[in-house]
Amino acid sequence: MEQREIEYEHSGLVMKGMAVLPESRSGNLPGVLVGGDWRGRHAFAIGMAERMAKLGYVGFAIDMYGGAKLGANLQENIALMKPLQEDRGLLMGRVNAAHAALKAMPEVDEARTAMMGTCFGGMCALDLARSGADVRCVVSFHGLFHAPPAALCKPITAKVLVLHGFDDPMANPEQGVALGRELNGLGADWQMHNYGGVVHAFTNPGASDKTRGAAYDERAMNRAFRSMQNLFEEVL
Amino acid sequence: MEQREIEYEHSGLVMKGMAVLPESRSGNLPGVLVGGDWRGRHAFAIGMAERMAKLGYVGFAIDMYGGAKLGANLQENIALMKPLQEDRGLLMGRVNAAHAALKAMPEVDEARTAMMGTCFGGMCALDLARSGADVRCVVSFHGLFHAPPAALCKPITAKVLVLHGFDDPMANPEQGVALGRELNGLGADWQMHNYGGVVHAFTNPGASDKTRGAAYDERAMNRAFRSMQNLFEEVL
Repeated sequence: MEQREIEYEHSGLVMKGMAVLPESRSGNLPGVLVGGDWRGRHAFAIGMAERMAKLGYVGFAIDMYGGAKLGANLQENIALMKPLQEDRGLLMGRVNAAHAALKAMPEVDEARTAMMGTCFGGMCALDLARSGADVRCVVSFHGLFHAPPAALCKPITAKVLVLHGFDDPMANPEQGVALGRELNGLGADWQMHNYGGVVHAFTNPGASDKTRGAAYDERAMNRAFRSMQNLFEEVL
Repeated sequence: MEQREIEYEHSGLVMKGMAVLPESRSGNLPGVLVGGDWRGRHAFAIGMAERMAKLGYVGFAIDMYGGAKLGANLQENIALMKPLQEDRGLLMGRVNAAHAALKAMPEVDEARTAMMGTCFGGMCALDLARSGADVRCVVSFHGLFHAPPAALCKPITAKVLVLHGFDDPMANPEQGVALGRELNGLGADWQMHNYGGVVHAFTNPGASDKTRGAAYDERAMNRAFRSMQNLFEEVL
């Protein structure tokens, strides 16, 4: 697999995505954006982009913070993420800039793109869809559900797949129902898969504190990945 | 494919299931019970059993009413179903009798059984799990969610998959959340897949009144079937 750092810009901020390309390839490939959690373009997000490349797609770990900045600890992660949670227009601008950079890659078929993301990256994926982007599907893994201001949202053309732990304290079942109603209102073709007894961060092998609501769950991870692949096969 | 009517009994009532066996088979096969909707062991349920046989399983369309009775109209269907909705112990007894008949078939590996059902049959599938039956998984398609009396429920060992239209008026999103909490309480490994903009009866090509909340949806049907197959591959 080839890793390639790709610079792109939004409102004067230079961001550095990390693309991962499959070893053998012929013709233009579908491209899949990967939205990392609050740690930014961390090795975990690049690992997900590698998994996309193993499936035959161009993976692209996006950089939401600029300069591929990483927080050194929990407080710094929060400080990096918070301004984007509070300015969803800015968030949408940055994720759309990453989408444009992916589509501009010579190896990518610009008509066949998708986005997947975990936690904060799941919110970024949903916001890409809400911004009306021409992306075939978006997939949220244990994402955050808070709706952006309605004025920022357009009719959703992307197919939406939400993969979620029913016992996730960061976005509980009632918030899941509210998200469903919001997505209906935006005209989306959406699915939400809830996993019983599963909490936040179930894709992250480093998460291990179920009593505090964040823990890896290999079974849920495998089911969710399979469902993502099913949707990719449907639309990409 | 071979169709074979199988008589079995519960509390003196003789029931007539319809088994469908794959054309070519070697060794004992997993068996899948099919719970029909309120129409009983209707051609639609037998068609589902045929689909199970096409997947390589022994399909078994169960008879919940005895004598393979079919209602001639809506009123008769309701009259047949209602006593079972009102006596969940009786319902559990009849579906467990069907399960025993399936396991007793010489072509079936009694350790590898599952149940799928639509509408009322989805409730029957959930109740088979709630009764503590030794079945590997149960799958509800646009099922009914009302919990039975707690005294009838045992810890659930079956994996549970609920495939549901988010806009189904027969079991709304809040009832879905309540079902999730009930299944957590029974210790189940469960999943619930919600489909946005999809109403009741989405597996039934004969249903076509979306404004009244029941309509076929080919896309949802295909996604739901795929998810059922994913689970069958995981556990059978």
